[in-house]
Amino acid sequence: MKSILTLFLALSFTVVFANDGVILIKRLGNGVDATITVRNAIQKLRAKKGNKLILEKGEYHFWPKMAEEKYLYISNNDHSLKSIAFDLSGLENVEVDGSGSTFIFHGYISPFLLEKSKNITVKNLSFDYARTFHSEGKIVNAYKDSLDLSFSKDFPYSVDNYRLNFKDKENNSYPFGHLLEFDAVKKEVAPFALDYINGVENLIAKQITPDLVRIYLPGLKGNVGNILVFESKNRLVPGIMISDSENISISHVTAYHAGGMGVIAQKSKNIFLDNFNVKAGEGRMVSLTADATHFANCSGKISIQNCVLQNQMDDAGNIHGVYAQIDSIKSDKEIIIKLAHFQQQGVDYFAVNDSVEFVIPKYLETYAKNSIVSLERINKTYIKVIFKNPLSSNVKAGDNLGVLSDSPDVIIKNCTIQKNRARGFLIGTKGKVLIENNYFHTWWGAIDLYANGTDWFEQGGVADLTIKGNIFDNCNYGLNVGLGVIIVLANMEFNPANPTYYNKNILIVNNTFKVFNPNILNMKSVDGLTFRKNKIEYTNTYKLPEWYATQKIEAFILQNSINIKIKK
Amino acid sequence: MKSILTLFLALSFTVVFANDGVILIKRLGNGVDATITVRNAIQKLRAKKGNKLILEKGEYHFWPKMAEEKYLYISNNDHSLKSIAFDLSGLENVEVDGSGSTFIFHGYISPFLLEKSKNITVKNLSFDYARTFHSEGKIVNAYKDSLDLSFSKDFPYSVDNYRLNFKDKENNSYPFGHLLEFDAVKKEVAPFALDYINGVENLIAKQITPDLVRIYLPGLKGNVGNILVFESKNRLVPGIMISDSENISISHVTAYHAGGMGVIAQKSKNIFLDNFNVKAGEGRMVSLTADATHFANCSGKISIQNCVLQNQMDDAGNIHGVYAQIDSIKSDKEIIIKLAHFQQQGVDYFAVNDSVEFVIPKYLETYAKNSIVSLERINKTYIKVIFKNPLSSNVKAGDNLGVLSDSPDVIIKNCTIQKNRARGFLIGTKGKVLIENNYFHTWWGAIDLYANGTDWFEQGGVADLTIKGNIFDNCNYGLNVGLGVIIVLANMEFNPANPTYYNKNILIVNNTFKVFNPNILNMKSVDGLTFRKNKIEYTNTYKLPEWYATQKIEAFILQNSINIKIKK
Repeated sequence: MKSILTLFLALSFTVVFANDGVILIKRLGNGVDATITVRNAIQKLRAKKGNKLILEKGEYHFWPKMAEEKYLYISNNDHSLKSIAFDLSGLENVEVDGSGSTFIFHGYISPFLLEKSKNITVKNLSFDYARTFHSEGKIVNAYKDSLDLSFSKDFPYSVDNYRLNFKDKENNSYPFGHLLEFDAVKKEVAPFALDYINGVENLIAKQITPDLVRIYLPGLKGNVGNILVFESKNRLVPGIMISDSENISISHVTAYHAGGMGVIAQKSKNIFLDNFNVKAGEGRMVSLTADATHFANCSGKISIQNCVLQNQMDDAGNIHGVYAQIDSIKSDKEIIIKLAHFQQQGVDYFAVNDSVEFVIPKYLETYAKNSIVSLERINKTYIKVIFKNPLSSNVKAGDNLGVLSDSPDVIIKNCTIQKNRARGFLIGTKGKVLIENNYFHTWWGAIDLYANGTDWFEQGGVADLTIKGNIFDNCNYGLNVGLGVIIVLANMEFNPANPTYYNKNILIVNNTFKVFNPNILNMKSVDGLTFRKNKIEYTNTYKLPEWYATQKIEAFILQNSINIKIKK
Repeated sequence: MKSILTLFLALSFTVVFANDGVILIKRLGNGVDATITVRNAIQKLRAKKGNKLILEKGEYHFWPKMAEEKYLYISNNDHSLKSIAFDLSGLENVEVDGSGSTFIFHGYISPFLLEKSKNITVKNLSFDYARTFHSEGKIVNAYKDSLDLSFSKDFPYSVDNYRLNFKDKENNSYPFGHLLEFDAVKKEVAPFALDYINGVENLIAKQITPDLVRIYLPGLKGNVGNILVFESKNRLVPGIMISDSENISISHVTAYHAGGMGVIAQKSKNIFLDNFNVKAGEGRMVSLTADATHFANCSGKISIQNCVLQNQMDDAGNIHGVYAQIDSIKSDKEIIIKLAHFQQQGVDYFAVNDSVEFVIPKYLETYAKNSIVSLERINKTYIKVIFKNPLSSNVKAGDNLGVLSDSPDVIIKNCTIQKNRARGFLIGTKGKVLIENNYFHTWWGAIDLYANGTDWFEQGGVADLTIKGNIFDNCNYGLNVGLGVIIVLANMEFNPANPTYYNKNILIVNNTFKVFNPNILNMKSVDGLTFRKNKIEYTNTYKLPEWYATQKIEAFILQNSINIKIKK
């Protein structure tokens, strides 16, 4: 018993209290679980025994064993019981400084949670996982509907009765639900590759030699020498989760991996990312398994500056609101709404005093406004909402409800966005937006003013957007969801009798477009767009797929739009 | 909008308030979701506007859509975010009377939750599911390692790239993790069948005709004409969940199905089941997917009388405590314990003021006692425990901690237990236990005094058990986990230097044993057993498997036991 007691005493000495509000964590022994040490240190912050948590520079390891657990609903990720290493919830005026440390996570544990937190800075650290939530296999042979793959020791697996099961040395399982090919040389998504999503988890596998697994899936194709990524089925383990918080700063933080998004903020105000970087770890194609950054119903200011966001399996950033679906009308001031997308369930997008809009999903037309007096959560999916004013007589089940007052100003500046699957930035806010001096090399469009009231339920629409001084370097080399370097294709029908111009006042100036594909802008339902003083350079970096090469494709596709000024 | 308002008004009239504390729910229209009506009625109970909830006799349907949701840790079931139709948590002095109604549940929703409830009666109702959590296929052809199955419309499925996926019309999925054959004529588990568990979810399937699915799994066998049950992978949707409650009565309730146990009670006092019945629905082999009843760390009295418990996929009942594993020692009065079995995690088995024992897992030897002064939950798995007295110097990591003060008296009387997988009753309590006048026809042993400190972590050991006037009708016709109609095989090594007699004072009297297998009692480490005035009838209802037929098998196998009196 003595030796165990000694160990505990030794561990407790790793937290040191200095005079100036600093709680210092000294470097731990090799392979020691830092979770309880960090948790105890945060307990001191919570007891206001300090406001700065500094970790001595080193490598820290975290396991779920001693971690805080909370059932969390995280927008556009999957809700679940989550383990968290740094649970900064409820804290105010706190700084966490990693001193340049590396954090290695083992299994299903998220680095950071900030819920109802205020004035928090997280800085000077990087995080990675001992075993990634996705897996990568090298394509050794290719046949019809079938590939032979070899997996490095970083991606342990077993083949059980023709099923491919990824795991780790602690026997956690890492299910996949999506396949995508990466170019092994360029370390980017393979040009014009396909997303395999439907039924992928049912693929048939056979261990044909000790080093080779043959997989079979109807329609599967791949190029020998490239890497096939087995994207994780769920987004259970995001990196930095921010909910109902204010004045949050993340700086000089590098995310090499997470089993979900990098930074996901919901219903929060003033989020500042400076030198927040997303990069694939050594020898890997993929960094994060989902978006680098994501902001749902945030307000105030969002700043993303000096960031490198690359190789993640989804967008570099998505800033949007959420449309709830009207389920039923209970009285002249009372309705029940539904959070209809499964990755939106449980999130408190709507709050008392929010001003809201009622929207026809088909036309994305706002036909009434009101404000919220009270809310009653029925369960993660349904909420009863009571309004200040009587409902418009037009309100009906199936329409959408969105918050109007969550419209952050956004600045995205001096960033590099490249080699990831999907888009650069999706922007949907009526605040002032500046996208300046960035480098984009994205598999789909670089900037996408998306919105959708029937499926993804993402509320968008800009009112003041400036895109200035950026380099768009051969963007949309996926081309499998349509044309465009800059895309404005909200998912809406145009109603000529009562037109909705969903996006307004867009200025695109002084940018460089390097394009292998003649199309630059692909837009509809815009009121007010100026395109001037941009440089367009035609390249042959990628060879247009045969079908596209035979089409006449315009540089500027603009439908149902007014007040458009394009000067090439 | 008017028609919707009218509908709401109509619905609200279905809850009627009478003068005598009765809240009456009138029969709803065909196929109407009763969930919100019931929830509103319970709201009235909660506001003390009544103490009796009566449902007019009829058929009521429940969907998760409007249900209460809670993240629940339910012993020996799987923790998850659960939807509950009747959430009676926190209520006192309440009766729910179904008037003989039938409740039909649709999807992942549990009928009842009683958490911190007191003096509650639930009576006069039955519940079933529109689509069961398990599936059943008729064996049409049998080959080596392969069977052809036909599924009725009750068990919708699809075959996707050689995977068999069970689903319902709302596209919920019903994964399986265990196969077991049932005798289609006798409607019981097939004699001497095998439990297929390992790797079952990886089986290969092919739709060979519109009506036939061929499945392939190494080692798979089955008899043409019988039914192959695809047992649900998880126990996510128990029937009646009782936690930290007192004086709970369930009477005249029939459970035709649930996706977990029928009645599961944890850390609760005084549970009375009268005419609680478990039966397979029309045309099905299987009733519940797990135990009919289960009691973990309960106290006071447990009464199970006049119950028919049949065709469930696990035991008729299991009454036990839980051993936590000692993870580490923090000070002379403080340890960290681990709830080591994944289906025990998150349950508050330990409470302040509990008297506890320290146990050597290998020998199930109690070597020290103490009592709990305070508890701090680290997460669902780890708990810090502070004791009243200094720890024994023998206490070490890896030993077990169990509660001594949870030792209910038990009466099981006038029940029929038959045709289920696994055992009849597992009994592990130091209270007074009477098992009288029951009929047993179980696939494994009828009564099993089990305990395990290293794997299932179930604390047991009886001190006063009477088994009287029961009929044991050809029990243990599975025979695949060992011999015995009455079994006392706690998972322990016998230490001759310091013997532990784990079970004590057992009286077996006036029972009838009908046996096709010569073994009746299979016991070890018992102090005090009297077997007298029992009738033994040898039958040929089942033909002993070849291997057993060639062995000399004793009627009474007793190892390492003292004070044994057997009079045939």
